Formats: sequence, C-alpha cells, structure tokens
Amino acid sequence: MKSLSELREEIDRIDREILALLNRRARLAQEVGEIKKKKGLPFYVPGREAKILSKLEEINQGPLPPESIRAIFREIISACRALEEPTKVAFLGPQATFTHLAALKHFGTSSDLRPMDSIQEVFDEVEKGRVDYGVVPIENSIEGIVNYTIDMFLDTDLKISGEIFVSVNLHLMSKEAELSKVKKVYSHRHAIAQARKWLSENLPKIEVEEVSSTAKAAELASREPGTAAIASEAAALLYDLNILAKNIQELSKNFTRFLVIGKTDSEFPSGRDKTSVMFSTKHVAGALFKALQPFAVYDVNLSKIESRPTKKKPWEYVFFVDIEGHRKEDRVAKALEELKETCSFFKILGSYPAGFKE
Amino acid sequence: MKSLSELREEIDRIDREILALLNRRARLAQEVGEIKKKKGLPFYVPGREAKILSKLEEINQGPLPPESIRAIFREIISACRALEEPTKVAFLGPQATFTHLAALKHFGTSSDLRPMDSIQEVFDEVEKGRVDYGVVPIENSIEGIVNYTIDMFLDTDLKISGEIFVSVNLHLMSKEAELSKVKKVYSHRHAIAQARKWLSENLPKIEVEEVSSTAKAAELASREPGTAAIASEAAALLYDLNILAKNIQELSKNFTRFLVIGKTDSEFPSGRDKTSVMFSTKHVAGALFKALQPFAVYDVNLSKIESRPTKKKPWEYVFFVDIEGHRKEDRVAKALEELKETCSFFKILGSYPAGFKE
Repeated sequence: MKSLSELREEIDRIDREILALLNRRARLAQEVGEIKKKKGLPFYVPGREAKILSKLEEINQGPLPPESIRAIFREIISACRALEEPTKVAFLGPQATFTHLAALKHFGTSSDLRPMDSIQEVFDEVEKGRVDYGVVPIENSIEGIVNYTIDMFLDTDLKISGEIFVSVNLHLMSKEAELSKVKKVYSHRHAIAQARKWLSENLPKIEVEEVSSTAKAAELASREPGTAAIASEAAALLYDLNILAKNIQELSKNFTRFLVIGKTDSEFPSGRDKTSVMFSTKHVAGALFKALQPFAVYDVNLSKIESRPTKKKPWEYVFFVDIEGHRKEDRVAKALEELKETCSFFKILGSYPAGFKE
Repeated sequence: MKSLSELREEIDRIDREILALLNRRARLAQEVGEIKKKKGLPFYVPGREAKILSKLEEINQGPLPPESIRAIFREIISACRALEEPTKVAFLGPQATFTHLAALKHFGTSSDLRPMDSIQEVFDEVEKGRVDYGVVPIENSIEGIVNYTIDMFLDTDLKISGEIFVSVNLHLMSKEAELSKVKKVYSHRHAIAQARKWLSENLPKIEVEEVSSTAKAAELASREPGTAAIASEAAALLYDLNILAKNIQELSKNFTRFLVIGKTDSEFPSGRDKTSVMFSTKHVAGALFKALQPFAVYDVNLSKIESRPTKKKPWEYVFFVDIEGHRKEDRVAKALEELKETCSFFKILGSYPAGFKE
C-alpha cells in the first residue's frame, strides 16, 4: 500500500501531464480558430461540443461519473474557445440569478457573460450582433411556459442552439413560525403533486388548495394567517415568509429550462438532439390532429406542445412543438416536410443538443 | 498546414488521454480517501488544493491563462473529492445569489451546496456538523463589512479556511428614462470614486451626493424625480429603476468578499495565505498602536483592520485584523505571539489561501 505522500506525488505528476495536454489542446484549438476565421466559420459549434462530451461519456470507465466529466470538459472547452475570443453571451439579468447560473453551466466560466434588463434586450443584443448568444428562460417544470420568450420567436428570425436545465427546490413557507399553526396549504397543482408524499406524511388532514402559480400561493400565504405555500426560496424572500420545511418535493426534481438563442441553430447533429418548430394550422376541426400525424407515422417523439394566440387574428393559434431528434435525421426531416405542407405558417426554430437534468 | 478534420481528430485523441488521466487521478484520490478515513484526517485540505493550483500556474507555459487553469482544476479537484462523498456546504441562500456563485466558484459543481435562510443558520449547520463548510459574505469593496458575520465570530469557535471574491458591476439607474433628465446622482462614496471618470465625462455639471450605501441611493432615486443612483443591478430590480448606463466603474472592479468557515482553518500553508485574528486591547491611550507594533517589527502586512463594539462593556472594542501570511510562517507566528501578550482577549480565526479577484 502506498503512503499518503507517495499518492500525492503521483497525483501531482498526473496533474502536470494533464496541464501539458490542456495546453496542447489549446494550441490545436487556436489552429482550428485560424482556419475558421479564414473560412468565415462560427467559433462555437454546439453540436460538435455536445458530441465531444457524449463520446467521452461513452468510453468513460469511471470512477468519475458522467456529470463530473461533463463539468470538467465544459470548462476545458470554454477555456480553449476563449483563447480566440471569449464567447459573448447576453442573459436575462441581473447577475446571480437562475439565468446567470444557466449561462455559466452552458458556456463555462471562461466566457463573457453580460446581464440584460429584459428578455427583449437579450434578443436585441443577439440580433444586432453585439453578442454571440443569448440565454433566456423558457419554462419551469411547475409553472409552465414563459410566454414572453415564446412570443419573441414570432417577431424574430433567431434560432435555438441549445437548452439548459437548472434545478429549483420546493419548500413549505408561511408567516407562521410553526408547522402546527398551518391549517391550509396553497400551491400550483404541479408543485402539490410533487410534494404529495411529504404532505400526506406531515400534514395529512390539512386543506390543500390549487392556485395559478407558486408565486401566487406565496402571496396568499403572506396575507392569510394560518396558511402556507409550497414555492421556491425566491418566493419566501420576496414575501418575507418563514421556511417551515425544506426540499419537500419528490425525487423527481423541479427544473427550470432555458434556451440558448443565436443567429444559427446547432447544425451538426450530436446524436442526442431536440428540434423546436412553430406553426399555425387552418382553423378547421381536426387541423391540429392532422398536422401532428406525420410525427406518428415517422416515429418521432413529441416532448412538448404549447399553443399561443397570434396577435393578428382572434382564434388563430400558433403551436410550439419540441420533438426528439435533429432536423437532419431522415425520419425527422420527412415528418417536418409533411407537417409543413398542412400548415398556413411553419418555421423551424432550430435543432440543438438536449440539455442534462443534473 | 493541417486540415480542420485532422486537427479535430488530434483534439479528440488528446481528450481521450485527458479522460484516462482524470480517472487515474480519481482512483489515486480514492486511495488517499481510504488512508484519510483510517487515520481520521479531513478530506478537504484547502491549503493543499491551493498549493496544487499555484504550482500548476508556476509551470504553466500557456497558451491557457492562469484563470482558466484554475477554473478547470477546480472542477477536477471537486469531482475527485466528491467520489468519496460530495463536500457538504451550507451557504447564505436563497439559490442563485452572489453567495451561491461564490460557493460554486470555490467548491465546484460536484459539491453538495445547501442554501440557508440566515448567516446564523450557516454557522449553526457547520457547528452541528451537518455540513462540512459554510460560505458567508464578509465585505463588499464598496459598502464595507458585513457586521453580522463579524459578530458571529464572537459567539462561535468556528475557523476561517478560505476566502472567495465575486465581482459585482455598477450601473447608473433612475426612474427617468433619459440621462438628460438626471439632475442629481446619489451613491456611496466608494462607488462615486469608482465612477468618477464616467461621471466627469458624461454628467460633468451634475450634483453628486454621498449617502450611506448604494441601496440607500437606489431607494432615494426611486422616490425623487430627476435623480439617479450608482448601484448594482439587484438594486435596480428591487426599486424598479431604469438602467441608464452600464458598468460605469473604473477598471478596478467592485468585488464582494466571502469567507469559507469550518471546524478547522487551512493548516497547510499554500505559499499565498492570509490570517485573520480578533483581539481586544485595554482601554488606554495608544493601546491599539502598541498592539499593532509587532506587525511592523516582523514585516507583516496588514490587509485590513475593522473594529466592533463588544456586547459586554460600552467603549470596549474588538478588532478584526487580516494579515498577509500563514500563522505557521516564522515571522507571522512571532508577531502574533507578541500581539497576544498585549491583549486582554485574543483569538486566531484562521489561516487560509488568499482568494483570486477574477
């Protein structure tokens, strides 16, 4: 058995080897950068980066888990890319918010992250070319879609080049200082569902009322004595509530999803992609059903469908659909082609590597 | 000249080598963990980690800059440490705040970060052994010290094992929508000093008034038409102000400093350390001057001195001093020994690797 100091010497030796390889990798990345500059190619190729990560995960024999490999290589890739010029990323600010965490998680610490005051401003910065990418929230696994972001895609030609998940914990909060004083619990029905086990074990005989959002629940709890809300810490802070129990959601975590927007999508399939499309059908019975048929025919999974009224005509809807697969995959391309034919309006928002829930 | 695909193949080869080395390093770290477990030694040794980083920076020949090397190895070390068990860290919550960013920056993404409701709760969690470390704000380069954290050290025997810096940008904000409407600017004097150049170039004839904090400035700007504040984005959000100009501070950035607290300090000198001590002198003229004399004699730099009234006697003060160097360095040890002799109360809060402002 080796001694502590022998093991440490070996670790130091390995670290020096890793350092040398990192710098060799960086020099190669610089050469890649020069070629790209000459040819006018983009520096950041999300599909290639996702593929690098997924290939490494495949051959990874451990003991390091895939999420650690991803975290380490995200920093390596971010650092090599920054040698050319740090990737400029606008995000919905202020600093130190969930969107900031999402941008860090995706682009690494060696990027130039710039907080913006509004989702609109993030889109503007990307459109005007002042930044390379933007990061905006798109949905929360509890509250659902961020309509403002969805609507922006109606007014712009920007594409989606990535998605990011960041976990958000749920807590029981109240103006009351003790759990025994709580006679009623408010929350969004998804949050209630996620906390059902905890509620049945800890507050079995308490009335539970569904409201439109966890923020609304927190607001009600701040006004009505004897009530509590299931919501995030941010809500507890905003409405000055006491957190009576932490992390009461089931194992399936609560995530907020963010989109990376840019002038192009992720053209290069990574092998684990999603594609987002936007379309309108004629306002006739069964139109949506018919529109979605190609996905069934070509065995393409729908991971999400949302509808939003258009601003132009009453009762005219735009549908936003996320599907599994890349637009360059055969079955996906065929399904999209057929869908397009049934639509009065059709736009591919982009194909991009699927995010990791971790 | 190599082609794009040749370069990429080479990068992929290097990535596979790095992956293999990472897993070899992880296995060695596991062996270290087993020995430590047998001997009852702590898993996290901040001094050793800082030394690993500083040695790598020394031999680093580039092109990767030192801050990228630090960011990559912080994730490597975090991942290897987590194989034994993720380091449990309590931080002042909620999630997605500057303290969360600080904890991530220091402990990496492979650690178990737990948001707490108050600074007191962070200290409690560490004292009760429910987490390994805590992260709390200690001072902002503009507003100064966080008194609550300072006071906690009077009531606890916890030690300081690290410090972390996170940068915070300054903006001009107002209820007005245009800069031309601004007739007066409020801010803390440090923020005004940092923005002097911008003010003289952009608002040369405007009255500037010093107030106690940037938050106070933002509050005043939210109530008085025609005024603006220099403050952080968080303040703009809180008081619903328009940001009229971004990042108006000088190059010297505005940082918030955080402390890592634990049951022990960083015993192992890293070569680039600080030491924090706390002491009271007798209430006689010249007592503080006399107390500080040993630092001059032994050539020890003071990087900060703060005083706080004790809760026990009026006019009795406790001083908090940060010095450069580790308590195990000869000149530091001697200076502290002599200081101790002149004090009615004396406590070493800990020696720890100095943080990086980046």
